Amino acid sequence: MTNQAESKSRVYFDHAATTAIHPEVMAVFSDALQNNFGNPSSFYKEGNLASRAMNQARASIAEILEVKPEEIFFTSGGTEADNWAIKGAALAQSKKGKHLITSAIEHHAVLHSMQALEKQGFEVTYLKVDADGLVDTEDLRAAIRPDTTLVSIMYANNEIGTIQPIKELGDICRENKVLFHCDAVQALGAIPLRPKDLGVDFMSFSGHKLYGPKGIGILYKRRAARLAQLIDGGAQERNQRGGTENVPSIIAMAKAVELAYSDMEHESKRQIRLRDRLISEIPKIISYAKLNGHPNKRLPNNVNFSFEFIEGESILLLLDAFGYACSSGSACTSASLDPSHVLLGIGLPHEVAHGSLRISLGRENTDDDIDRFLQDLPKVIQRLRDMSPLYDDFKNNKIEALIPREGGNRLVREGGYGI
Amino acid sequence: MTNQAESKSRVYFDHAATTAIHPEVMAVFSDALQNNFGNPSSFYKEGNLASRAMNQARASIAEILEVKPEEIFFTSGGTEADNWAIKGAALAQSKKGKHLITSAIEHHAVLHSMQALEKQGFEVTYLKVDADGLVDTEDLRAAIRPDTTLVSIMYANNEIGTIQPIKELGDICRENKVLFHCDAVQALGAIPLRPKDLGVDFMSFSGHKLYGPKGIGILYKRRAARLAQLIDGGAQERNQRGGTENVPSIIAMAKAVELAYSDMEHESKRQIRLRDRLISEIPKIISYAKLNGHPNKRLPNNVNFSFEFIEGESILLLLDAFGYACSSGSACTSASLDPSHVLLGIGLPHEVAHGSLRISLGRENTDDDIDRFLQDLPKVIQRLRDMSPLYDDFKNNKIEALIPREGGNRLVREGGYGI
Repeated sequence: MTNQAESKSRVYFDHAATTAIHPEVMAVFSDALQNNFGNPSSFYKEGNLASRAMNQARASIAEILEVKPEEIFFTSGGTEADNWAIKGAALAQSKKGKHLITSAIEHHAVLHSMQALEKQGFEVTYLKVDADGLVDTEDLRAAIRPDTTLVSIMYANNEIGTIQPIKELGDICRENKVLFHCDAVQALGAIPLRPKDLGVDFMSFSGHKLYGPKGIGILYKRRAARLAQLIDGGAQERNQRGGTENVPSIIAMAKAVELAYSDMEHESKRQIRLRDRLISEIPKIISYAKLNGHPNKRLPNNVNFSFEFIEGESILLLLDAFGYACSSGSACTSASLDPSHVLLGIGLPHEVAHGSLRISLGRENTDDDIDRFLQDLPKVIQRLRDMSPLYDDFKNNKIEALIPREGGNRLVREGGYGI
Repeated sequence: MTNQAESKSRVYFDHAATTAIHPEVMAVFSDALQNNFGNPSSFYKEGNLASRAMNQARASIAEILEVKPEEIFFTSGGTEADNWAIKGAALAQSKKGKHLITSAIEHHAVLHSMQALEKQGFEVTYLKVDADGLVDTEDLRAAIRPDTTLVSIMYANNEIGTIQPIKELGDICRENKVLFHCDAVQALGAIPLRPKDLGVDFMSFSGHKLYGPKGIGILYKRRAARLAQLIDGGAQERNQRGGTENVPSIIAMAKAVELAYSDMEHESKRQIRLRDRLISEIPKIISYAKLNGHPNKRLPNNVNFSFEFIEGESILLLLDAFGYACSSGSACTSASLDPSHVLLGIGLPHEVAHGSLRISLGRENTDDDIDRFLQDLPKVIQRLRDMSPLYDDFKNNKIEALIPREGGNRLVREGGYGI
């Protein structure tokens, strides 16, 4: 699809980190960049052209999500949308209460927004998740207090792919009259989602995770839900988000959403088939390999395994040399040495968390990519284990394995779960 | 330069609102969008490619501005940069004090950020400006208190073009150990500026005002200056601004800055010549026309006149029909009916402020555009005055003119100044 992906020597398996722009999105983006540069707030032809295109993009996205156009706010990305929803809802309701609820495995855009609010005097409850990464609805019910004003739970986890029971969680929020934010950055375009059906008040989306441009995102805000501004300035976005509107990216985002929805059912099924080939084959050809995340309540494109005795970073580097682009934990934090908070959150011991590999599939991946990968991955893992002092200790019976030889999605020592 | 600008029938005179992407910027942008889509935080070829290109762009901008690469932070635009600098510096120093200083004619990204802080318990002094839009350095000195933590004054005004004495203001801030932010969105690429020489701690820039893409901006932050985060999330931008980096736009922004600096001296002189043709000719061919902003301490591309007895919006609509894209006050607020706070800030009575027209020149404007405009503008003004009941009253001696017949940059009633 792009030069990288077309090249026979590279297989891009990191679509949860970012995606290449779809050629059809690129075509409308390029056209808008060159022919629709006007400022939509202006009183002349070029401004009107930009304004009309922006309104059309907003209406098209609203129609697909079955919400009102005035409930769609364009942001600079999913991270800004998360920050705005969480900080904006917390601050707008601070007189009502200062207690917020989220889960321990949210994206850093959510967790770090929560931590910023903690510094400002808010109290945050971090719900634990089970070994598959699921939030327990009863845990949410029990955590809600009279001063709780906002709950933020992601639709699907970016690292392990687990899909949360959003509708059930939303119902509990509604019953308790607590606002509900859902980071749906990974879900948009992968799962049919209708904010109205889910009981959410705020929902965050990103362009570059679904073959759109970087630097553009959406915050869905239910009409009646109040929100303090995050970015003050001009009267853009109905006086709620300052800054000259990024019309070309808005047009491209609408096209990306449109394309994703045009063949979502077919493409999801196709990716689930590829995903499940990896999930069922990898434990057969690689020992001591544990599937992370829920076996089937997971994103169509997400595969995440821990391979015992080795390090994720080394797996990535060697896979890269073999022509594969994969991730170990979230790309946003892979520059850090700490193991992923998500993998620790589902109860993995540090040494297992460190040996994780995420394969996130995309539109351009094929059965051939999977065939090739299933041939190459065991070589990579074996080479690294051959160099591993831990594996040496294991073979010499100095340490025990934490993952069963035959794999699966459980550890040998179940006690490792539930931090 | 774009389809619009190439078309002989349109003359784009609203470069202060936004600019069309320069073809050379578009070329590198398009290439990056298609061939450099990787996430720079990732551990593989595509990630490294993106990371290297981003570092190169940062280094190139830093070199041009004569600052350190680690002092350059990419944002979603000038508005985010203003919000971040002001809210971030205010919050980071809130234990030291809660008094902030700005001017009455700042961009709304600055003023509304200040107002948001006022709601959080901060106190803000809004310095008045003189009839030309200049801040008095002694006013700043007098306004600084022991609890003052931040001063924010723009480099050059977006509506009237007036250039502030930034170095003098910066010196006063340094003497008093108060942090200094400067919104330089309109100045970048028009005036050679070196943050280090100006005594600024923070400086905001935008891509789309200098022929770069929308949705990208820069915050310069002096290394030692502390700043709370505005957008929390991943470890991007040295842990200070979350969100997947918009690498293609960052590359394009660097190219735009590079191009602007490559011929700034020549292009500035050229625009000043065109600007001064309009400034000297318009009062000769249109009566009761007042120049707004300083006669020569002004942006090379800015012309702003008030035409008495008529409305700015009507001027825009009629000029649009004649093929010209201009602005009346800031494009960011032109959807509002209130007269511009900048024009009120320099002491214009409402009726004079309402009849304002901003012409902001750009690279593709020529002497021919000016010739044509000087022929068409008097027709537009005359047609509107012929329909104006106010002009009728004036001709029938029922009201007096506020602007001298022969124009200039003063009003008849000087008392109108200095609100």
